[in-house]
Amino acid sequence: METQITREVAPSVWHGWGDPGHARPLGTSALAFLKSGLGVPDVEPRHGPVGLDQVQLSPSTLTESGPGAEALAALRRACGAEHVSTERMARILHAGGKSTPDLLRRRGGDALDAPDAVVFPDGDEEVRAVLAACAQHRLAVTPFGGGTSVVGGVEPHREGFTGTVTLDLGRMDRLLSLDPVSRTATFEAGIRGPALEAALAQHGFTLGHLPQSHQQATLGGYLATRSAGQASTGYGRSDELVSSVHLETPAGPWDAGRDAPGTAAGPDLLHLAVGSEGVLGVITSATMRIAPVAEHHAHGAWSFPSFAAGVEALRLLRHEGHPGDLPQVCRLSDADETFSTLRQGGWKTSALASYLRTRGQQTPALALFVWEGSAEDTRRSRRRSTRILQSAGGVPVGPLPAKAWEHGRFSGPYLRDELLTRGIYAETLETATTWARMDQTYRQVREAIHGAVRDGGGTPFVLTHVSHVYPDGASLYFTTLAGLEQDPLAQNARIKSAASRAIMDAGATITHHHAIGRDHAPYLQEEIGALGIQVLRSVKDTLDPVGIMNPGALIPAPSANANAHVHTTEDSA
Amino acid sequence: METQITREVAPSVWHGWGDPGHARPLGTSALAFLKSGLGVPDVEPRHGPVGLDQVQLSPSTLTESGPGAEALAALRRACGAEHVSTERMARILHAGGKSTPDLLRRRGGDALDAPDAVVFPDGDEEVRAVLAACAQHRLAVTPFGGGTSVVGGVEPHREGFTGTVTLDLGRMDRLLSLDPVSRTATFEAGIRGPALEAALAQHGFTLGHLPQSHQQATLGGYLATRSAGQASTGYGRSDELVSSVHLETPAGPWDAGRDAPGTAAGPDLLHLAVGSEGVLGVITSATMRIAPVAEHHAHGAWSFPSFAAGVEALRLLRHEGHPGDLPQVCRLSDADETFSTLRQGGWKTSALASYLRTRGQQTPALALFVWEGSAEDTRRSRRRSTRILQSAGGVPVGPLPAKAWEHGRFSGPYLRDELLTRGIYAETLETATTWARMDQTYRQVREAIHGAVRDGGGTPFVLTHVSHVYPDGASLYFTTLAGLEQDPLAQNARIKSAASRAIMDAGATITHHHAIGRDHAPYLQEEIGALGIQVLRSVKDTLDPVGIMNPGALIPAPSANANAHVHTTEDSA
Repeated sequence: METQITREVAPSVWHGWGDPGHARPLGTSALAFLKSGLGVPDVEPRHGPVGLDQVQLSPSTLTESGPGAEALAALRRACGAEHVSTERMARILHAGGKSTPDLLRRRGGDALDAPDAVVFPDGDEEVRAVLAACAQHRLAVTPFGGGTSVVGGVEPHREGFTGTVTLDLGRMDRLLSLDPVSRTATFEAGIRGPALEAALAQHGFTLGHLPQSHQQATLGGYLATRSAGQASTGYGRSDELVSSVHLETPAGPWDAGRDAPGTAAGPDLLHLAVGSEGVLGVITSATMRIAPVAEHHAHGAWSFPSFAAGVEALRLLRHEGHPGDLPQVCRLSDADETFSTLRQGGWKTSALASYLRTRGQQTPALALFVWEGSAEDTRRSRRRSTRILQSAGGVPVGPLPAKAWEHGRFSGPYLRDELLTRGIYAETLETATTWARMDQTYRQVREAIHGAVRDGGGTPFVLTHVSHVYPDGASLYFTTLAGLEQDPLAQNARIKSAASRAIMDAGATITHHHAIGRDHAPYLQEEIGALGIQVLRSVKDTLDPVGIMNPGALIPAPSANANAHVHTTEDSA
Repeated sequence: METQITREVAPSVWHGWGDPGHARPLGTSALAFLKSGLGVPDVEPRHGPVGLDQVQLSPSTLTESGPGAEALAALRRACGAEHVSTERMARILHAGGKSTPDLLRRRGGDALDAPDAVVFPDGDEEVRAVLAACAQHRLAVTPFGGGTSVVGGVEPHREGFTGTVTLDLGRMDRLLSLDPVSRTATFEAGIRGPALEAALAQHGFTLGHLPQSHQQATLGGYLATRSAGQASTGYGRSDELVSSVHLETPAGPWDAGRDAPGTAAGPDLLHLAVGSEGVLGVITSATMRIAPVAEHHAHGAWSFPSFAAGVEALRLLRHEGHPGDLPQVCRLSDADETFSTLRQGGWKTSALASYLRTRGQQTPALALFVWEGSAEDTRRSRRRSTRILQSAGGVPVGPLPAKAWEHGRFSGPYLRDELLTRGIYAETLETATTWARMDQTYRQVREAIHGAVRDGGGTPFVLTHVSHVYPDGASLYFTTLAGLEQDPLAQNARIKSAASRAIMDAGATITHHHAIGRDHAPYLQEEIGALGIQVLRSVKDTLDPVGIMNPGALIPAPSANANAHVHTTEDSA
């Protein structure tokens, strides 16, 4: 039986997210709020993408008659001529990820970063042969899963290379083995979220890893970026679920991790491969810990008098509740995000807002929970959690808000495409910090974004939520809305830079689940130290001695500084 | 109030474990069983350690008048002359760890491996200065916490150096900060288990990390070896509890980890520092996630018709039980270990054995559980677990066996000293594997040990237990008893080698919590791959360019093979 999480969606269109036929347009009330709230002259859909024929890309360096002919022939030998594409459409589809600057460039007709060729190997040997061909001919290699990076993780980097090749793992999408006794499953890394869940569901299992990008992203992409999913509070992050990975590196194949729980055999090199963002090699398969499909989902929502009160309630739920009672999904919106949710929801939620005012909550912060498990367990967990949440000032508002969220859990990215078309800047960024630093971090980052939007003359609307709860802290996720400026790439760079500076100054992490890519690379040294960078470089030199793997991502170039990427995006604008 | 886990014990004597005044001698029944079961002519205490004055060690190369005078002066400048010792006793106490071969050598009067000097720095600056002095004068550095390594992790390595220095972190034993809101605490790394727990208990917290070595081991030692404790099934392993570490390396200070939960900022370099066994630098402080002291411990024990049935019951408890119901402590003994427990326990346990026979359990396998938490939660968890354990064939035998185990939880290592004195070989080794491979791994390793003991003409008695339960598998811990052979170091090498081969052949990990040290180094390449070794070497070259840090440990020398250590121990026997 097909479910919400096993239903496959076509790969994303070149100018935006997924299959636009699945997008649900904004209602008139939301549009009216955007117009007035953001102080924009109109929200007419006047800013759509250019026509496909207007998209510009450089001629491929890999042609049969040009200087790259030998390299092209080598790639064709590596994985079959029919699996090496230099076609315009394939190149445009692999020009980069899905960050707002990526979309702005693509929608504006700029696919200049597109790779010279896209290769579709099948199997470790073919991947190995592709890497060998690229090393020999000095072609930069960008591993590509679902292409959902929002931090510049999959854009080709041409400087210093004879050409750029994107290695699409789409053909490597098989379930290789499943051990129902140990509850582990080994997949090829190119499998997308829905196909992975469908393969497991046939055996009664789930990975439980459901990022918003689930319908597009691949297992290899999850692991290369240490991704977290919406239910990771319950199921664990991708880096907690992985048991081993197979990596094809220019220096040879490498199995990181031994499929044995709890080893003490030296440093955990699995966690050097996981999170390596394609700069050390290509993750071609992985063994994951799996769980039985939950028999039941119990939903609940509580409203808190403030975001800080809600954060404290989440902390108490984690610290004072019985460990087994923690919901798989824990989400808490701040007052602005809650306002937006209530506003969008129509008359039922207006009534809810009125009710909350009578309970003294002028600026309520809404928390949503989903408990997954047996009907008996989930209901008991919800009942016992209720005591903690109410003692922390929560007003129960029934299961519907959590059900509504769950129903639309993968639809967020579609909304951005419409917003951009209507002339509205929309981008997300995220961090995580300890409980003690949550409120200050929230305030400082929010203030920085507000300031950066205002610096461009705009009126900001920033929606914030917590979506991942840990023993020692939680995540913070910020969505910024504002009128698009004349130079939207500069606008984006200014906002991103201000927010990133605030995150680092607050002692939080530069990224909780979006990873480093090229956009966060200038901050990595502050995050892991100068010696940390040297350590990464030495590992890269060992596994990728020629330096062809995803250059520019993760590890900043020796001369990089915090303005490096800003400069680049301005140049290409 | 002092408790079992906050009570401090004097540092170990030079020839054995802890304070021998705390040892409980073996009873007559146990001695009789050992004599008959192991087929030894007698168990008289005729094999005690030599007198301290008979212990041989090489003259220190670091004297005021010899060629090492400048180096000695540099060490004294680094941390104060009174904190640099070249005294005989300090050197003997730091000659190595507490493996059976370590003890055999020491008890036989061999402390030839003793370092030339022991330094006791206080603070990161002094550690840094010591490392600089050692790098300048080409002295090998062995970081030393509690000195409890059972895998050759702390024995100095002289070859290729002008001298050897052991860096004892004993003076660095402070609680630096505690964040009760985020539930984290930062300690200096030289703090021992009981002092750490006493410092936390004052604030109502515990680390919950209680290896059998708890009374001697230090936090830095835990983290350098990715140790697990007896209650790690509930509280998590040391590598799961750590949030960040400060490392002093020859290349400079390095903070690994950012004290933010759930970061996706590239590979997790914290897990390169954790488990690095002193070869990259010295862990001088660490931030750990802490938990409130449990209000109540609920105990329970069940007997199973076989070890395999017990393993399956543990798996079901983990897979089918409510996650919050999993006991903090899960232990399952095989038939031989259960027999030994019942035999040692006197008439009450004899009655229990009789009762189990009436229930059809001729060779029972005893499982012990401790649930920690509120009185209400633990009792409910025990009640609900009972259903699963009974449906898996478990016969409840009341709380007393688990209480008795808990009472003696730190006394195991004392027993070995008496066994050696009575001419009985006793050593432990351990692994972990997936649920699906548990039974086969158990059988193969046990058979290998049996065979290796018999090859020397002995009669083996091998006690096995599971002590750590994971989602995808569990640990296996083997204790071997046999009559001591004429050449006990050769005997040990033969048994260890056979067991290690069986572990690797079964696809299990070479170590679940004892770490690599020098004893497991020959197997590391098989565990992490040739590229894994190259990666470790490149990281070491970056952080320890002169190569002074704990040489010989963890990373095998380029020419090393599986017989390297065997050879060494035979040479020094």
